Amino acid sequence: MKVVIIGSGPAGIVVSHVVKKLKPDSEVIVIGKEKNIVVRCSEPYAISGDTEVDKIIKPDEVITSVGADLVRDEVVEIGKTVKTKSGNEFEFDYLVFATGAKPFIPPIEGAELKNVFTLRTAEDARKIRESLSEAKRIVIVGGGMIGVELASLLAGRFDVTIIELLPKIFYTSYDEEFCSEVEKLLKEKGINLLTGKKVEKILGDEKVKSVIVEGEEIETDIVLLFTGIRPEDELAKKMGIETGKFGIKTDKHMKTNLDNVYAAGDCVESVSIVTGKPTPSGLVSTAISQAKVAAMNICGVEAEFPGVTNPSITKIFDITLGRAGFIQKQAESEGIKVKVGTFEGLTKYDTQKDPRPMKVKLIFNEKEEVIGGEILANGNFVAPFIDFLSFAISKKITCNELKNLQYSAHPELTPLPFFHPIVSACEQIE
Amino acid sequence: MKVVIIGSGPAGIVVSHVVKKLKPDSEVIVIGKEKNIVVRCSEPYAISGDTEVDKIIKPDEVITSVGADLVRDEVVEIGKTVKTKSGNEFEFDYLVFATGAKPFIPPIEGAELKNVFTLRTAEDARKIRESLSEAKRIVIVGGGMIGVELASLLAGRFDVTIIELLPKIFYTSYDEEFCSEVEKLLKEKGINLLTGKKVEKILGDEKVKSVIVEGEEIETDIVLLFTGIRPEDELAKKMGIETGKFGIKTDKHMKTNLDNVYAAGDCVESVSIVTGKPTPSGLVSTAISQAKVAAMNICGVEAEFPGVTNPSITKIFDITLGRAGFIQKQAESEGIKVKVGTFEGLTKYDTQKDPRPMKVKLIFNEKEEVIGGEILANGNFVAPFIDFLSFAISKKITCNELKNLQYSAHPELTPLPFFHPIVSACEQIE
Repeated sequence: MKVVIIGSGPAGIVVSHVVKKLKPDSEVIVIGKEKNIVVRCSEPYAISGDTEVDKIIKPDEVITSVGADLVRDEVVEIGKTVKTKSGNEFEFDYLVFATGAKPFIPPIEGAELKNVFTLRTAEDARKIRESLSEAKRIVIVGGGMIGVELASLLAGRFDVTIIELLPKIFYTSYDEEFCSEVEKLLKEKGINLLTGKKVEKILGDEKVKSVIVEGEEIETDIVLLFTGIRPEDELAKKMGIETGKFGIKTDKHMKTNLDNVYAAGDCVESVSIVTGKPTPSGLVSTAISQAKVAAMNICGVEAEFPGVTNPSITKIFDITLGRAGFIQKQAESEGIKVKVGTFEGLTKYDTQKDPRPMKVKLIFNEKEEVIGGEILANGNFVAPFIDFLSFAISKKITCNELKNLQYSAHPELTPLPFFHPIVSACEQIE
Repeated sequence: MKVVIIGSGPAGIVVSHVVKKLKPDSEVIVIGKEKNIVVRCSEPYAISGDTEVDKIIKPDEVITSVGADLVRDEVVEIGKTVKTKSGNEFEFDYLVFATGAKPFIPPIEGAELKNVFTLRTAEDARKIRESLSEAKRIVIVGGGMIGVELASLLAGRFDVTIIELLPKIFYTSYDEEFCSEVEKLLKEKGINLLTGKKVEKILGDEKVKSVIVEGEEIETDIVLLFTGIRPEDELAKKMGIETGKFGIKTDKHMKTNLDNVYAAGDCVESVSIVTGKPTPSGLVSTAISQAKVAAMNICGVEAEFPGVTNPSITKIFDITLGRAGFIQKQAESEGIKVKVGTFEGLTKYDTQKDPRPMKVKLIFNEKEEVIGGEILANGNFVAPFIDFLSFAISKKITCNELKNLQYSAHPELTPLPFFHPIVSACEQIE
């Protein structure tokens, strides 16, 4: 069995691993056009110098050590075989699109100037890092996770401005009360926040000098365009594969409309587990889960990917935020009648030193099944709560079932036992 | 409706709150023999000076603010009324035992000497704290949570010795590979660890001077007997209420064998949700959950307590440990054929600064339903994972269902996304 995987990111890596594990005799070829395997979510930390670019690059052995071949080349045409830019040709029994995504560059005049950057590859991260050595002022266009995380890592050492088109940062990821907490913190830390504002022009000669935001000119040494990603689905389209607004369409087996052709990761149009409607995901954990399902089905082990809960977390200075499923405004815009339970408290018992604020919001549908949750706390407290909620959402767990949770309690490690964050939020639903 | 609650600890408080909420017109009387409402799990931090004894005492308003009466008195007899030491008498329609537990004092010669302490009340904590001002050497008898936590808080400032009868500290709570990690850390921090050893005698004149452990004499200024707790069930027994080895027996409504008499918290013999067999709990979260169920049933709202998962967590220096359900040796001693999945990794991406070790062990029964889990990590990472496992155990979630978890990932906040702690442990089960 010959399996050709296009893309050497997380989805490509996982497909190669699972296929080689289940069918050790298969021939697996991963064709990657990027120079390196990079841990993309660590890029802000490499740019800020909190880690090194070389440390976020993984060796090719990540793929080759399982017996798969890694070809550094770009696929240009797919027919009965896969043809690459350098003239190679690969036969396949199964083809997997793990082509990922590319940065979306908004049509702004001046976006081509020097020191205007987008971020995807390790080389992108390296260029931004290098440019920082001569910079004092940084404009980040886009108040999403990567932009705000990087802003929080650079604040204090640089004059940082975030420009966001939508009314608040994190606007599509969190409900307003959570966005506001983050905005308050960013301002306290000296970050210049321009929300609900559009970048009209980027000015400069060779290098960028300023951006024009609704008539106002903001001088800067660097512009970072963190304005979202788009699926890499052109090759698939050319091949006659059905795509949607958010990427390649697949069934629950991660198979496309073509026999023996699968897709996984950022290039895929995911489906919400709550509504069954198309939705973007763009999360590495989604890519990995979809890749496992694709690989298993290729190997004849039936598996289904049920749709995404999109659990994600972020760290902004010393607060951590997470969410899974729907936020309130998103659920309401889908026409779902929601019930909302909240918790506001402390991350530790009030008997202890330095308890920190904690905030939870749970969204239920009319049947009182949990369909979403948002959490703000500190440290590594948030991630496992979000995983728990993600599980609960995918299993249609009800408010009453969550209310009966038996939970742990400890003065230094949890809120007071009378106020478990999830149980307390559930107890607000009558 | 008149409800008399014996005991002003967490179970008593929660019964009073829920009854007053559901039946605001009811008369609720809480009779507490302790001087104060104390946050017991914070006592080690008050003893060590990491917080103050006064800060771990809660005001009486915790009970009276909901409209319940708080009577500081000791119940001495129960017939058609409840009679107290000071001669008061209370009628009741419903009676709730929330009498808690008392320290178990092993029959050791010299246990009555000065500076030999047990710990339950705020006054106990205060006495120990005061005695520390003149102490250099401390012997802690009992390598359970409270003893080891307090040892970790006092190490460095005092010569601390832990003496444990069983082969390892935490022996009944964790499997050996977890116990060993903690023992290694305690030794590194200079704590003197004597495991598998019995205290034969405590010597001294008026004050304690030393303990004799299998012939060896260990000099000390203070001895702390942290040798477990026993349910306060004598009053119940006298009244003809059925008790077991671990306390007052109840049905799933938290009702005893007598009509209109309920029980909740440490005085109750809990039942394992996995085996349905009697088991101790001794956790504040169990007390709170049982109290809610008791109060609801008293108010005519049917509710069931399904049995305990016993989720618990602890912090020893800078590692945190948690567990829920069965550990392997406990499951095996119950005759359960187990499957075990493990994860060993890091709490952060390896691209980041200062990742810390993380260790997970999941226990499944033959049907591959999760019946237990143990986790070692750092910070406030462990508690929500344990809550998640507790939920999964109570819902008989299978390995395959957990394997399909969609989870969050972040360089600073989770292990690398290829290695989710729970999913990875599940993937070891074939």
